[in-house]
Amino acid sequence: MRQRVGGCILADAPCLSNNDFLPGVFDRLEESGKNCFKVGMNSASANPANRKAEAAASTPLDSLSVMFEPQMRAVNARILEAMRSDVPLIPRLAGYLIAAGGKRIRPLLTLACAGLYDRQGPAAQSLACAVEFIHTATLLHDDVVDGSEERRGQAPANLIFGNQASVLVGDFLFSRAFQLMVEQGSLEVLRILSQASAVIAEGEVMQLAAANDLETTMDRYLQVISAKTAALFSAACEIGPVLGNAGAQAQEALRDYGHHLGIAFQIADDVLDYGMGFESFGKAPGNDFQEGKLTAPLLIALQDASSEEAAFWKRTIQDRETEPSDLAQARKIIADHDGFSKALALARAHADRAASTLTIAPEGCVREALTELAVFAAERQF
Amino acid sequence: MRQRVGGCILADAPCLSNNDFLPGVFDRLEESGKNCFKVGMNSASANPANRKAEAAASTPLDSLSVMFEPQMRAVNARILEAMRSDVPLIPRLAGYLIAAGGKRIRPLLTLACAGLYDRQGPAAQSLACAVEFIHTATLLHDDVVDGSEERRGQAPANLIFGNQASVLVGDFLFSRAFQLMVEQGSLEVLRILSQASAVIAEGEVMQLAAANDLETTMDRYLQVISAKTAALFSAACEIGPVLGNAGAQAQEALRDYGHHLGIAFQIADDVLDYGMGFESFGKAPGNDFQEGKLTAPLLIALQDASSEEAAFWKRTIQDRETEPSDLAQARKIIADHDGFSKALALARAHADRAASTLTIAPEGCVREALTELAVFAAERQF
Repeated sequence: MRQRVGGCILADAPCLSNNDFLPGVFDRLEESGKNCFKVGMNSASANPANRKAEAAASTPLDSLSVMFEPQMRAVNARILEAMRSDVPLIPRLAGYLIAAGGKRIRPLLTLACAGLYDRQGPAAQSLACAVEFIHTATLLHDDVVDGSEERRGQAPANLIFGNQASVLVGDFLFSRAFQLMVEQGSLEVLRILSQASAVIAEGEVMQLAAANDLETTMDRYLQVISAKTAALFSAACEIGPVLGNAGAQAQEALRDYGHHLGIAFQIADDVLDYGMGFESFGKAPGNDFQEGKLTAPLLIALQDASSEEAAFWKRTIQDRETEPSDLAQARKIIADHDGFSKALALARAHADRAASTLTIAPEGCVREALTELAVFAAERQF
Repeated sequence: MRQRVGGCILADAPCLSNNDFLPGVFDRLEESGKNCFKVGMNSASANPANRKAEAAASTPLDSLSVMFEPQMRAVNARILEAMRSDVPLIPRLAGYLIAAGGKRIRPLLTLACAGLYDRQGPAAQSLACAVEFIHTATLLHDDVVDGSEERRGQAPANLIFGNQASVLVGDFLFSRAFQLMVEQGSLEVLRILSQASAVIAEGEVMQLAAANDLETTMDRYLQVISAKTAALFSAACEIGPVLGNAGAQAQEALRDYGHHLGIAFQIADDVLDYGMGFESFGKAPGNDFQEGKLTAPLLIALQDASSEEAAFWKRTIQDRETEPSDLAQARKIIADHDGFSKALALARAHADRAASTLTIAPEGCVREALTELAVFAAERQF
């Protein structure tokens, strides 16, 4: 006998602890029950499907993926359906990028935040798909912009299909995202995501203008990542209480949660970009450094740079004259200034703020996983 | 004493003929009256402002511009306001492109088609602005895609500001367009324009795939221009009856009007691109030929090409090995096959279909100007 409330499965016990694992529930989400299913790692299972789920459930992100697995499968089906087109290049290119995967964190946030308010139906799934399309469109356009040569260990789409196709397929996905939103009929969701899209584009332009500029301040950096990363995290989360008609206070709380989660996530990403945990991160290190992007660790090191260090940054970041050994040198200088640890402390502070906004949300396993996710975002090694 | 109905000014006389000109009315649109103000050229005026308006009113497009001058001014103000951003590059780049002008035919269509149903207020103006933003975003992305070196006699934005900025500012304008639509609160308008945007992107990808392909058929060409040009014309027009709650039949008629107008307009554009009327067109001729685009005149000439001509097209269009004298040669071959006149006849057929759909719209000067506009689109020399 299982019950469900607020997106959670309740097994025979009223509330499973973090160390329990409920086998085989993921295909049987039901429509009623109590909000307190947790995913743990400690119950060995003979069922391979369960073992697989258990093995995967090693981070709060994995826990959420497992909790919302059937919904996420529906989102994936929706993605495949919505990127169909009579023009074969469109599903081919979009599929290449979407299949490449990444963490699918944004649509999962939409599912989880809708799940908090007992909304797990097709509307949440379509909007999760829309969020992923906006993200994918941004990546496609970002690759064109950056001319970067690798993304998550894969050659970026623009190098395989051309800049032209990347721009246009990005436009297609962006338009499809709006079509999916229109189908759901919520003007409030449309308002949130159209605003986020405008802010993302502003953030990208801002980043473009700030690249290679050693005068960039930490405030400006935070402005850029608020726009280019946190805006979509924030919108993805805010959709949840909107779907659940949970009121303005809940909407504001989840918006803030997504914002601070996004900031924490991006700062950690920028630390990881210097090559910490490269193997599991699956991305060539030093991208930001090579492109002359000024991110948190570097900005901290810049604040009290010696004249010799200042000359190094001028040559590598401003003038972009780099040698193969420069990345290691950059890493060393940043570490000497505690740039990485201070950046991660900043990420952690945002993670804490994210977690604290959740006290207004319905208690239960989803809220706990989201709370843990915030901490994880700042502390992950990949 | 003036009255107004259906977007038209009625002066003392109940209906002014095509040869009359009503001086100084454009700032004084009022909320009631009869639908029959026409703009002509024959009444000399001592007022320079009127003379200017009269001089401009030499085409149906000019007539519409004059009729909707105050609204168009409001649209321009709305455009300036909506492209504001704290990121200075955005208004600078968007302003560069929007100031460059072009015909502003799409927002004018929205104003006119809304005017047909007595909707001339801020809603129509905001949506006209949204339509122009979608068009501008498309141009920005198209310039990146084409790598074209000139657009309407100006260097394209991407050559001045860089591909990166063009992609991102395009994204910004696109998002802003959706924000403007959301503000107006019509899900039907959002549906129409998000669908048009997806279709436009599909059309651009389709065109990309068809470039340099001598197997392209006339059907495929018509599919491409239906998507990349006619879809936005059609959406721009369909908004009118939606705003006016004019019903499904009116909506379908105006959608069809815009579609056929767009097809006629694009075929004429493709004929003009071969250098007919270059001086007034203000655009370097031969762009399509140089880029290996297969448009109507060329497709007609291809249908019964001699083997010598086929070799010429293979070298210039498929293999893109061109010499400076090739454009003149291409023009000659096309003319030998009546490619230009046959293409224009096709444009005219679509113009006639556009005009015939308007019989369902409220009679009056706006409908007449739109009817004349269809013919003009197919026959214009610039």
